[in-house]
Amino acid sequence: MKDIAFVDVNDGSCSEGLQVIIPKSLQPQNLSFGSSVEVHGTLTINPNEQIEMVAEDIKVVGPCIVSEGYPFSARKVYPPDYVRQFPHLRPRTKQFGSLLRVRDAATRAIFELLHAQGFVNVHTPLLTSNDCEGAGEVFLVQPDSEVLKKEMAKDGKCPEEAYFDSKAFLTVSGQLHLEAVARGLSKVYTFGPTFRAENSRTRHHLSEFYMLEMEMAFLENLSDLSTFIEAFVKDVTSKVLEECEVDVQTLLQEASKEGEHLTLSELTQRPFVTVSYDEAVSILERHSEQLELRVRRGEDLSKVHELFLVKHCGGGPVFVVEWPRKIKPFYMKCVAGDTDKVAALDLLVPRVGELCGGSLREDDYTILQQKLESSNLDESLAWYLELRKYGNTPTGGFGLGFERYLQYILGIQNIKDTIPFPRWPHNCKL
Amino acid sequence: MKDIAFVDVNDGSCSEGLQVIIPKSLQPQNLSFGSSVEVHGTLTINPNEQIEMVAEDIKVVGPCIVSEGYPFSARKVYPPDYVRQFPHLRPRTKQFGSLLRVRDAATRAIFELLHAQGFVNVHTPLLTSNDCEGAGEVFLVQPDSEVLKKEMAKDGKCPEEAYFDSKAFLTVSGQLHLEAVARGLSKVYTFGPTFRAENSRTRHHLSEFYMLEMEMAFLENLSDLSTFIEAFVKDVTSKVLEECEVDVQTLLQEASKEGEHLTLSELTQRPFVTVSYDEAVSILERHSEQLELRVRRGEDLSKVHELFLVKHCGGGPVFVVEWPRKIKPFYMKCVAGDTDKVAALDLLVPRVGELCGGSLREDDYTILQQKLESSNLDESLAWYLELRKYGNTPTGGFGLGFERYLQYILGIQNIKDTIPFPRWPHNCKL
Repeated sequence: MKDIAFVDVNDGSCSEGLQVIIPKSLQPQNLSFGSSVEVHGTLTINPNEQIEMVAEDIKVVGPCIVSEGYPFSARKVYPPDYVRQFPHLRPRTKQFGSLLRVRDAATRAIFELLHAQGFVNVHTPLLTSNDCEGAGEVFLVQPDSEVLKKEMAKDGKCPEEAYFDSKAFLTVSGQLHLEAVARGLSKVYTFGPTFRAENSRTRHHLSEFYMLEMEMAFLENLSDLSTFIEAFVKDVTSKVLEECEVDVQTLLQEASKEGEHLTLSELTQRPFVTVSYDEAVSILERHSEQLELRVRRGEDLSKVHELFLVKHCGGGPVFVVEWPRKIKPFYMKCVAGDTDKVAALDLLVPRVGELCGGSLREDDYTILQQKLESSNLDESLAWYLELRKYGNTPTGGFGLGFERYLQYILGIQNIKDTIPFPRWPHNCKL
Repeated sequence: MKDIAFVDVNDGSCSEGLQVIIPKSLQPQNLSFGSSVEVHGTLTINPNEQIEMVAEDIKVVGPCIVSEGYPFSARKVYPPDYVRQFPHLRPRTKQFGSLLRVRDAATRAIFELLHAQGFVNVHTPLLTSNDCEGAGEVFLVQPDSEVLKKEMAKDGKCPEEAYFDSKAFLTVSGQLHLEAVARGLSKVYTFGPTFRAENSRTRHHLSEFYMLEMEMAFLENLSDLSTFIEAFVKDVTSKVLEECEVDVQTLLQEASKEGEHLTLSELTQRPFVTVSYDEAVSILERHSEQLELRVRRGEDLSKVHELFLVKHCGGGPVFVVEWPRKIKPFYMKCVAGDTDKVAALDLLVPRVGELCGGSLREDDYTILQQKLESSNLDESLAWYLELRKYGNTPTGGFGLGFERYLQYILGIQNIKDTIPFPRWPHNCKL
């Protein structure tokens, strides 16, 4: 305005800035969008009942000369694809600031809710000598220094095995380690980065992503597990929505431009639906003309199938339970009376498809031994089998993809916009 | 006894078990130490005012035949070196159960205290294309599959660069990434695994360890940083001691067999001492006859020097401040008026030596540019320099080794006994 300027100052503590009123006489020449400033002044309440500051002194700590290449301008909202090109500057945007605060709140909600229920946080290792699911899509880890590898290699070891005396991989799951700890502490969880060396370039995959995994002793029914998951997911969401109301609104406004998402009350109140794998396949068969990919009974579901099932079952989360044994990992327990099916569940949600996977674990020593032998894992997982030999207990648990969870509650189209520094094939910027 | 048996049942929720009284007639034959059981009965309060259970039914869920190789027996406390050989069974021991609960409590205390002060938890990446400190002791990461690497390699890229189009390493610090986010959110921290590909086999080193790192905008005095660290370390410790009194006692009893450690009130109340690097070297020079290793002014301190300084300064934590520029990383800011010294601090504590390192960061574009050029990092860290170009702010922060912190408060001799599944040279079990 003529005699005064309004400046929106944000310190990153919330999405709304503080409006600062600066008399023209005090306004520094190099004050521009994107600058960092130090302001002294008096806080007042303006006629709209908002807090604002009348500046008595203002200093530009770090100027920002937009013409020299700063990629953002005042009052513009940029598409996520554009903002993502500047990962080191992205945290300064309003949208991504909101995302980072919601991510923090969701992390703390997970810790608080599990602690309140007696779960102990266990830091399962990132480096491991076993390739958990035998999937092969793992990252190999070795020292970068050739000199160190030569110096450390014992007789008969190849350079890749020099440092640890065996090949070492980045973890794809902390589950097997959690099962060991659950036999001491009963209720345990791990929350941390997990890795997949896949060449998937979709809106739902990252090479480095966060996973919550929990394991509970004496869990003997799949329905107890699905009941737990439903309550837990809703509780985390309620806590996040409560703490981050404005940030969530900021993000949902953006999301609603890009398609449907659940409303806040739908997220926390709509009951989750359960269907068996067999029913799910029957549904998909009946609607094959609407699906671009045909389903085959006995095989895994693809993303289009998952999203169709969610829509078909009312648009909210859907548990698919009791899966064919042949397409699931060795550690899952068979359904009582049906050795072709395992007591496993997938939780499917709108927009992202699979959010959680869980199961009861095979706790019979002899059956597990056979399964390990037939998967050629009996040597590397001898320790895992031994858990069933001494003071064994049944256990079960699940894993939840944290970035997919954020996509689900915030309606975020691309998983790369849910994590501060995303890694995907051909991209490890910074 | 003649007609009844006493059984100590523990579910891992605390270090003390529940005493269960079993009439001889109900006692299963295969009930032995290490079994898992399901008991139904009545809770009562015995004459010693302790809760106990009188069993009405007891079932052995998982027997434990010690003679078949279970490595632990009833009422024995084993030395940590022995227990460490069985990482999959170690969580069942009383000592290690206590450690895991304390580790969980300390993790939550860090999150809660930083949240209460307005800090946002940021998941900095584990995979990075920059080798933060240029130290070279990094792990290289690439897909295990040769087929995948061939399939993905772009023209001119070597197999190691196939997946990400550049070499990718495991992080040695999240600091540089935190500095980027601090320019948006002001107060940020990261807590997670960090890696060193060193061939150090000491009681103080792991290849995979946890680090808390925080970064704060507008931090301009080193003394503000040391004040923050002192209050923070004491607050975390107070919270842990309050929540885990019995577990901490269990662990300290073990520790007191192995040497001195601070008492609980010393941990939370003794003021931290500050000496400059120059003073510290003078102290060490004056006492050179008591030191097995001679100190050299201008060079780094070794573990013996660190521990001597702690003893000499009263036995509690000691900040050593204002270090020679030449032995510290490029990103540290010079002390005002002395370009040979940087505004850096190390916090030294009994038993472990260095617990934290922190500094003010160089925020002058031109000085940082020169430093990056002379370290040959100007290309890979162009993004880091750019943080100083647009809306720059001064920042500072520190990193704290979490396992060393646990060693410090719990008096634990060997760092391998502070983490569930330790990794060190020639060892990546499980």
